[in-house]
Amino acid sequence: METERQKIVERIKSESRDERPRELRLAQWTRSNKWSALQEMLIASARPDLISFSVGLPAAELFPTREFAKAVDRVLATDPHALQYRPPYQPLKQHVVRLMALRGVRCSEEQVFLTSGAQQGINLLVRLLLDPGESVVLEERAYTGFQQVLKPYQPRMATVGTDVETGMDVEHLERVLSRGPKPALIYAVADGHNPTAVSMSADKRKRLVELARMHGTPIIEDDPYGMFEYGKDQSPPPLRALDDEWVFYVGTFSKVMAPALRTGWIVVPESLVKHLAVIKEAADIDMAPLNQRAISAYLDSTDIEARLDRLRTEYRRRRDAMLKALAINFPSQSRWEIPSAGFFIWVRLPDGIDSGELLKTAMESEKVAFIPGHSFDVDQALCEGDGGKNCIRLSFSNSTVEQIEEGIGRLGLCIKNTIGRTSGAV
Amino acid sequence: METERQKIVERIKSESRDERPRELRLAQWTRSNKWSALQEMLIASARPDLISFSVGLPAAELFPTREFAKAVDRVLATDPHALQYRPPYQPLKQHVVRLMALRGVRCSEEQVFLTSGAQQGINLLVRLLLDPGESVVLEERAYTGFQQVLKPYQPRMATVGTDVETGMDVEHLERVLSRGPKPALIYAVADGHNPTAVSMSADKRKRLVELARMHGTPIIEDDPYGMFEYGKDQSPPPLRALDDEWVFYVGTFSKVMAPALRTGWIVVPESLVKHLAVIKEAADIDMAPLNQRAISAYLDSTDIEARLDRLRTEYRRRRDAMLKALAINFPSQSRWEIPSAGFFIWVRLPDGIDSGELLKTAMESEKVAFIPGHSFDVDQALCEGDGGKNCIRLSFSNSTVEQIEEGIGRLGLCIKNTIGRTSGAV
Repeated sequence: METERQKIVERIKSESRDERPRELRLAQWTRSNKWSALQEMLIASARPDLISFSVGLPAAELFPTREFAKAVDRVLATDPHALQYRPPYQPLKQHVVRLMALRGVRCSEEQVFLTSGAQQGINLLVRLLLDPGESVVLEERAYTGFQQVLKPYQPRMATVGTDVETGMDVEHLERVLSRGPKPALIYAVADGHNPTAVSMSADKRKRLVELARMHGTPIIEDDPYGMFEYGKDQSPPPLRALDDEWVFYVGTFSKVMAPALRTGWIVVPESLVKHLAVIKEAADIDMAPLNQRAISAYLDSTDIEARLDRLRTEYRRRRDAMLKALAINFPSQSRWEIPSAGFFIWVRLPDGIDSGELLKTAMESEKVAFIPGHSFDVDQALCEGDGGKNCIRLSFSNSTVEQIEEGIGRLGLCIKNTIGRTSGAV
Repeated sequence: METERQKIVERIKSESRDERPRELRLAQWTRSNKWSALQEMLIASARPDLISFSVGLPAAELFPTREFAKAVDRVLATDPHALQYRPPYQPLKQHVVRLMALRGVRCSEEQVFLTSGAQQGINLLVRLLLDPGESVVLEERAYTGFQQVLKPYQPRMATVGTDVETGMDVEHLERVLSRGPKPALIYAVADGHNPTAVSMSADKRKRLVELARMHGTPIIEDDPYGMFEYGKDQSPPPLRALDDEWVFYVGTFSKVMAPALRTGWIVVPESLVKHLAVIKEAADIDMAPLNQRAISAYLDSTDIEARLDRLRTEYRRRRDAMLKALAINFPSQSRWEIPSAGFFIWVRLPDGIDSGELLKTAMESEKVAFIPGHSFDVDQALCEGDGGKNCIRLSFSNSTVEQIEEGIGRLGLCIKNTIGRTSGAV
């Protein structure tokens, strides 16, 4: 059959007029589409000989692989339509409601919308809220995945500062909201911020939500790390707990279970769910993939609170190991806060160190990787001072305690050598 | 922990200023966002007492459920990082290259981009090619999922006609392309068109590709049904076989394997793959979900040509049963062609029948469902004659031969009764 068809193809091609092909024109926004330094780093840091603190991966040895395999088997053995187009899987929404209660959020199944991971959640909400050319409020340093979502809309970036101890500068936000034009949305990560590792203070959360409500500007609360709090139970609740009308919450199973399941959720006012269904249908057909059923079956037979406790304990152990190693190995002029949630530590190195240059040396001579702070800058010119040139983001989530001790030791050495060379040169 | 946190929430809420919330403003395009008649129909037609020829579902009893479960087990048992973030899965791209060869298309792994189903493939390509307000060429009746993708861009719809025997009116297309403005893309379904069931003639395929090349306007070739050809081996090849620069091919495992796997692919010039990776990363993170590995493991141990033969044989049997039942039961003024590919038969009923009204009666009194032809109209005013008001789309893919005989019998009766009443009234 293949050969027969190939003959037809050749015949048709030979008969075709050979017009000189014109150049393909892509959508205008793609002109600013470039491989980020971050992406290059992700590829480079996958080298097996490297100790990598760069990507915020969850630890694969903590995934419930065997239990999930059993759940898939159970679903496929008992449900003859498990692989068919189906509406979003209601029992999984019930599990999400219970998970949200553990986060301190009261919501109903009717307010839950299932997505293909948190990234799609953000994407659908931006599609729902943002017109091309409008303005968006985000911090000067922000998750690059959110910045990528914005790109095709070419919005005006209304950036606000971040305090490494208390989070988003809400007074700055108030000025931005007051002077107009009205932004389409505010992007916020209240717990375990990526990249600055800070969790917002209770007062700032309260004020942020008040401002959103006063100005009628919704907040996208991106909460991939909220389940991983290492502090006391009294840590402040997510923004969504404070307002169920102006805060659109984005959650994910990527860290609670595993990323390759590509399953997350949004919590929004019920009236928006129909809109999101239309948008998701256009994106990838809003029909339950097998994973929705398998995750639900897994959760049916799992003590999820016990699992979350185990995960928190292990990630806290890694965080503490990194904090200790930093105190021992990094030069005394370095600064960092103890992160109360999330996978990252944000370190400000001594003035004059260029973290991009440091990375090259660290990868070549010491086989250690991290992400330079300026990779997250929304607009380099807007960032305070040196635009985070001497800051680095370290992820402790995907390394063993031994790797952390070894890697931070090597990195400390590399920094001290750099300082030595710099002073020598002066 | 939950109660403790709830207390904090209540305290913060009680301290918050109670400003009157403003009205939420959504993106402008959402104003035209409405539940389509088609969507309502999909929900209604899920009733178990109904014989439904409405949705073009593949037959669940033909899914390789047990084999796929084994493939998942194999992957999870042998690969400790199967659930981690990973780059797109290369071995699955090799399988796609082999499947494309069966379709008569020569391509390389470097030209294959994996997606979350064909719908996402279309979505990513539109994002790549279309600027808001530009024009798009599509047929007067088109897959509603493609129309949904276009909505946020609010493009000018440059529609061309369709001949039910030979497909897209390429002379009409030539006039559209010549008079400008230059469209951003042409949307085409060359085999088993949805909804009109036609497969394009070889001459028209050749001319369509020539025109795209001459005018520098790329074609999105949406090919969900191409693997299901019921004719002879000499049927013409897909558009992508005729041009590897201006035809962007979209394929899917939804019908070859099962929809809930949400896995498809695009074949494009290699230079565009990097762009698509950036767009997909923003959409849902371009990282291999478990399904990519499991599908690949399934294909490793499957004779896919034999499977495709079995599927074609069964779907052909259902098509033939429906054609026979139509000939027996439908009034003689009805018209349809024998579809050489795909899941649908497009029927033009006698003049004067309103298929929307017919559907209501058929569902209520005869418990049979289909999709009225005008549900697919891009712009009702532009469609020739009565805008397909007396046309219906019947899907034969998800009903047994017995259901087809029974359902078409009842529907035929319903149509004859309608004609009787109409004549009586006149």
